[in-house]
Amino acid sequence: MLPMENKLRHTLHCHHSHYGWDNSLAPALRVAPGETVEFDIIDASGGQLVADSTVDDVARFDFERLNPVSGPLWIEGAEPGDMLCVRLLDFRPSGWGWTANIPGFGLLADQFPEPVLRHWHYAPDGARPALYGDLAQIPIKPFTGTVGVAPATVGYHSIVPPRSVGGNMDIRDVAAGATLMLPVAVPGALFSVGDTHAAQGDGEVCGTAIESPMQVVLQFELVKGANIPTPRLLTGGPVTRHIDAKGYRVTTGIGPDLMTAARDAVRYMVDWLASANAMSAEDAYLLCSVCADLRISELVDRPNWIVSLYFPLQVLD
Amino acid sequence: MLPMENKLRHTLHCHHSHYGWDNSLAPALRVAPGETVEFDIIDASGGQLVADSTVDDVARFDFERLNPVSGPLWIEGAEPGDMLCVRLLDFRPSGWGWTANIPGFGLLADQFPEPVLRHWHYAPDGARPALYGDLAQIPIKPFTGTVGVAPATVGYHSIVPPRSVGGNMDIRDVAAGATLMLPVAVPGALFSVGDTHAAQGDGEVCGTAIESPMQVVLQFELVKGANIPTPRLLTGGPVTRHIDAKGYRVTTGIGPDLMTAARDAVRYMVDWLASANAMSAEDAYLLCSVCADLRISELVDRPNWIVSLYFPLQVLD
Repeated sequence: MLPMENKLRHTLHCHHSHYGWDNSLAPALRVAPGETVEFDIIDASGGQLVADSTVDDVARFDFERLNPVSGPLWIEGAEPGDMLCVRLLDFRPSGWGWTANIPGFGLLADQFPEPVLRHWHYAPDGARPALYGDLAQIPIKPFTGTVGVAPATVGYHSIVPPRSVGGNMDIRDVAAGATLMLPVAVPGALFSVGDTHAAQGDGEVCGTAIESPMQVVLQFELVKGANIPTPRLLTGGPVTRHIDAKGYRVTTGIGPDLMTAARDAVRYMVDWLASANAMSAEDAYLLCSVCADLRISELVDRPNWIVSLYFPLQVLD
Repeated sequence: MLPMENKLRHTLHCHHSHYGWDNSLAPALRVAPGETVEFDIIDASGGQLVADSTVDDVARFDFERLNPVSGPLWIEGAEPGDMLCVRLLDFRPSGWGWTANIPGFGLLADQFPEPVLRHWHYAPDGARPALYGDLAQIPIKPFTGTVGVAPATVGYHSIVPPRSVGGNMDIRDVAAGATLMLPVAVPGALFSVGDTHAAQGDGEVCGTAIESPMQVVLQFELVKGANIPTPRLLTGGPVTRHIDAKGYRVTTGIGPDLMTAARDAVRYMVDWLASANAMSAEDAYLLCSVCADLRISELVDRPNWIVSLYFPLQVLD
């Protein structure tokens, strides 16, 4: 962990947001290394979904307004080749969130063509898990799904795919206590953050997590000329103890293609949950997205690899 | 967890082993559901590597003698479509093991063409971690890398790839306290087990774990007509608390192909360990294989997916 002093605090409100990456965007704020900034972050729907939205609003979803990020932030002294260290100091979630199956989006989009919307109301301080009706309870672990710096290539770049400069990475351990390291590609770095999630499993298999507006407090530091190829993370502590106490159900996908193996593992877990826990396949799929982890068990025993989905039993108690 | 009584105990010695899967093999032992069997398991080299072996023995490796499994075991009453539940009751590791880079084998075989061999001497009761010189210390968590039943298709099948009936799965949580569920494909199931590992990370990236002979005690139960598509697992408890206390370093591979992303994440971790911890790239690669976990962070943000490698910091203390 790098030594970082809390020198100053700024607030960047969510009206300072943009809908894609573009290194010609004017900075919304300029800070020096060591400074702390509070970001006000709207949910990934850009406010299209609110606490009384229905599934019809999912069907009407405007993808042009998807995933706004707050920023960009100019980091004084940042130059291409530097490493921007982002210390995730604090998350203040709103207590409301949503999870949806958006037609055409998600790992099993072909098998789940209908829109689904579920709302979550949870204790912002994490004192109690988020309830999924009477089917499951998910411990919250807030993190930023989209976090990155502007790419070197000029022009507009879609917010959807992550890149070597970060972006929509959906790494569920970019959470409080962690330090994310990003490769700076343009002068000033042009850092932005958004797409906050109250909880998610590795894979985000249905395409959405517990999508939830929140405030995030970040501190910035710069390492000159580190030249890292892609983002790195120090988690700052264990990453699954909030959810692993009862162990896991595990399903396996086995074959020569990792993507197919991942799809199989998820489908088999959906079937297991639906049959053993009296829930619909849609609910099982959404639950896998918010709490189950896709791991690569092996990719060396030619020609068949194994992707396993780990579903934490604690959430079903 | 299924109720399973400890009715009887048998011992299957390691001379009852075979080198591939074949449903015409004569059973070495017949047991009824509920019974307990102790298996004596030789290491994955089939005894070619011993405690005083050198790297020259790796270069001379005879792949025909790779990965013997103890068995097969006939389960009374087992029929195609049944689910064989294997309760992993106890592991008695030998205290010695090896990890190797075998030329042509492993995720980064193109980047690590030279044979490497490292020996481990560890406390069989797990009281102390296994030392990797003065570079790292790995908490042991013994499990069976290869465990499965005979495939339905007649003839000889290589031991190397896993299949829908299990086999060389290298799932590191098939450990004490877990229950593995296998789809029975032939009458009597014809169960075999081998390839015991004292520790491994998700992915087994260099192709070998801490390969270690040991005794394993298993209990069997049968669920008629369950018709599961691939192996399932109940872990029986948390799976990473033995190694996660200090958190993780994480590297990321980002792009449209999961295999390439996994390779990138591993290579970037090797580089990070080599530069930050003064070890050779070969040592970093082998350490990733025995303790670091490949996770799929997201595979929904088209067209770029993220595979992350989680390296536990505790082992570097």
